[in-house]
Amino acid sequence: MGHVDRHPWEPRYATRALRMQASEIRELLKLIEEPDVISFAGGIPDPTLFPIETVREAYRTALDDDAGAGRLLQYSVSEGDPALRDWIARHMAAKGIACDADNILVTSGSQQGLEFLGKLFLSPGDTALAMAPTYLGALQAFAANEPVYDELGLGPTNRTLDSYRDAAAATDGQVKFAYVVPDFANPTGITLDLPARLQLLATARDLEIPVIEDAAYTELRFEGEAAPPVQAMDVAARGTINQSRVIYCGTFSKVFMPGLRIGWICASHEIVQRLVLIKQASDLNSSALNQSVARHLAETCFDAQVARGRASYRVKRDRMLDALANHMPESVSWTVPQGGLFIWMTLPDHLDATDLLARAVAEARVAFVPGQAFFANGAGRNTLRLSYSLPDLERIDDGIARLARVMQAL
Amino acid sequence: MGHVDRHPWEPRYATRALRMQASEIRELLKLIEEPDVISFAGGIPDPTLFPIETVREAYRTALDDDAGAGRLLQYSVSEGDPALRDWIARHMAAKGIACDADNILVTSGSQQGLEFLGKLFLSPGDTALAMAPTYLGALQAFAANEPVYDELGLGPTNRTLDSYRDAAAATDGQVKFAYVVPDFANPTGITLDLPARLQLLATARDLEIPVIEDAAYTELRFEGEAAPPVQAMDVAARGTINQSRVIYCGTFSKVFMPGLRIGWICASHEIVQRLVLIKQASDLNSSALNQSVARHLAETCFDAQVARGRASYRVKRDRMLDALANHMPESVSWTVPQGGLFIWMTLPDHLDATDLLARAVAEARVAFVPGQAFFANGAGRNTLRLSYSLPDLERIDDGIARLARVMQAL
Repeated sequence: MGHVDRHPWEPRYATRALRMQASEIRELLKLIEEPDVISFAGGIPDPTLFPIETVREAYRTALDDDAGAGRLLQYSVSEGDPALRDWIARHMAAKGIACDADNILVTSGSQQGLEFLGKLFLSPGDTALAMAPTYLGALQAFAANEPVYDELGLGPTNRTLDSYRDAAAATDGQVKFAYVVPDFANPTGITLDLPARLQLLATARDLEIPVIEDAAYTELRFEGEAAPPVQAMDVAARGTINQSRVIYCGTFSKVFMPGLRIGWICASHEIVQRLVLIKQASDLNSSALNQSVARHLAETCFDAQVARGRASYRVKRDRMLDALANHMPESVSWTVPQGGLFIWMTLPDHLDATDLLARAVAEARVAFVPGQAFFANGAGRNTLRLSYSLPDLERIDDGIARLARVMQAL
Repeated sequence: MGHVDRHPWEPRYATRALRMQASEIRELLKLIEEPDVISFAGGIPDPTLFPIETVREAYRTALDDDAGAGRLLQYSVSEGDPALRDWIARHMAAKGIACDADNILVTSGSQQGLEFLGKLFLSPGDTALAMAPTYLGALQAFAANEPVYDELGLGPTNRTLDSYRDAAAATDGQVKFAYVVPDFANPTGITLDLPARLQLLATARDLEIPVIEDAAYTELRFEGEAAPPVQAMDVAARGTINQSRVIYCGTFSKVFMPGLRIGWICASHEIVQRLVLIKQASDLNSSALNQSVARHLAETCFDAQVARGRASYRVKRDRMLDALANHMPESVSWTVPQGGLFIWMTLPDHLDATDLLARAVAEARVAFVPGQAFFANGAGRNTLRLSYSLPDLERIDDGIARLARVMQAL
């Protein structure tokens, strides 16, 4: 070849690789390591809530006899541990989604579930419908398939079916699915009400597309009455999960802890069978040992962990809302979530949240995620996401006061 | 919609999804569960070799104090645990591949590494060069990107550079990489000698493509002198890993156990940086707890486990070779591997190994993998793969005798 420059492989990369960019969230995670930074950035569960003693007991029990340990440390089936899938199926049934283990695929966190669904549905140029803003990790998971995003209109909207179809055809693709985080959405904290869920299902039915329901935060409701899962509404209408257009992505990361890397997809048997092939090709199987520990936790302390998380994060949300009311200038507004981990803030139009972040970290040692990262089209420069899940109450108070001082100095 | 048939989503699937098929290896794994079947099918490590007591100790230690456990059960950096990456970098350096932690990405098994490399390089219609036969899991990992395969000619070959380029252009793509399992290949058990490695590097240099070196079995050498890793040869020629065209995929699955799901990629910093983005989008990170256990094992018993695996699998290989010599008809031939887990068998031209498998399971309760699965082009109907790693010596003897009886009855 003779010549070698800094990026010798650029001509050999797939076109998708050139579209994948570093995640601000992941980069910001590094800030958490610096103890003087108060981080409202990542949606990081509070480790003081992790059921560590139960985790110790679960690993001890799982590894107790040699034959059992040998099985859990071996290759295992791609669809996941049957006993864990049984537990998840019962958990889903209790939500009004009657199903069995054949409707469940175990994934390495719900992030992997989203990545698999992108692979299953999206060819380059196809359209994914999503709220704007929406979960950055979903945009990243889908990006490898080079899709186009169109804004899903729920509530009063002038979007017609033809406007969705025409926009998709303009990039030589079809509308392939609608993606939503219906409960306490990442990043906005907003929950879809019942009319919005009905509108979502009607739109999906008319466009003949599946709906991906990302339920990462669903268990963490502090107050108010829960609307049924979108999947439960569709199963009720269709009569069976196997005729449902809704694909539910669940995770143990927020109720137990992220480190096990165990989530799941609940969907029609036909779709699960397709996803099992994708799982095989992607990483063969998730750790059987970690699946066994997840099952132990699910069987012994799921409800207790949900109650613990709700109580703790509710107090933290209240503290952040109080601090915002006390410290923020009147030109700033924010959402009031009924659960989950996030508050969404809107700054005056002329402010740029990325500039604000640079100053906030440098001058006040406080961090958040600029909202623009959550918009596929680069909108939202004057928005930002605050997470109250990780810092303690004192640091929530202190961090919001610091952030308000930086904003007032602008 | 009105109509719903058995596969309502077929029109919505990505084109790649329709190309992904069930793995015979994975399906055959189910046979292992039936105790009367002697399985030579999966390349399954022997669980009696797993260092289970050290695993127990590693989990106990990792979870010992609450703060440390909290960190290992939290989200963690996508590139992997820095201390594990340091160990891997030293391990690679000892093989003649000087590198540091920035050249290492931790993956969920080497299967995930292969999947990421397909994503990084292959656009639909692009060509991957591979031996025929080659590792079925690699063909599956790459399949999501809809590539074309062309046979990599090593040894005496009439392939010219133009013949590779012209074939790739005929499907509107480019040659993107060469994939090899240089040591005790899956499925053939064959090792590339030094001239073949030099020829591989020269071909890759002239085609200006990277080489993917899948080193899954490299540690398990029973006898003979090892050729240097292809990556070590290239690093020596180029002066630094950061100018090397070789991408090395390693795994702890064969030396320790598969259940941790921990492997790695060693490559130039530029390529690792790209792969970190793919890891972020795919599953955020591999379990920090399992990475910590892998590091504990690496630091305390890597060499002992390598010695243990070599000794045990060597005896099993010898027993299978003896049994083949004793029982098989003269019309059958097989490879003699110097390491690894596999023997490759060639039947007379008129026999079909898939038919043989059906009869062998039904009539003699013995299983293997038909060789056709390992050919991208459907060749090799009269070939099959035998793995000696899982059954004990008596069952190896008995299983080969049973298989020979089925063959003699054909």
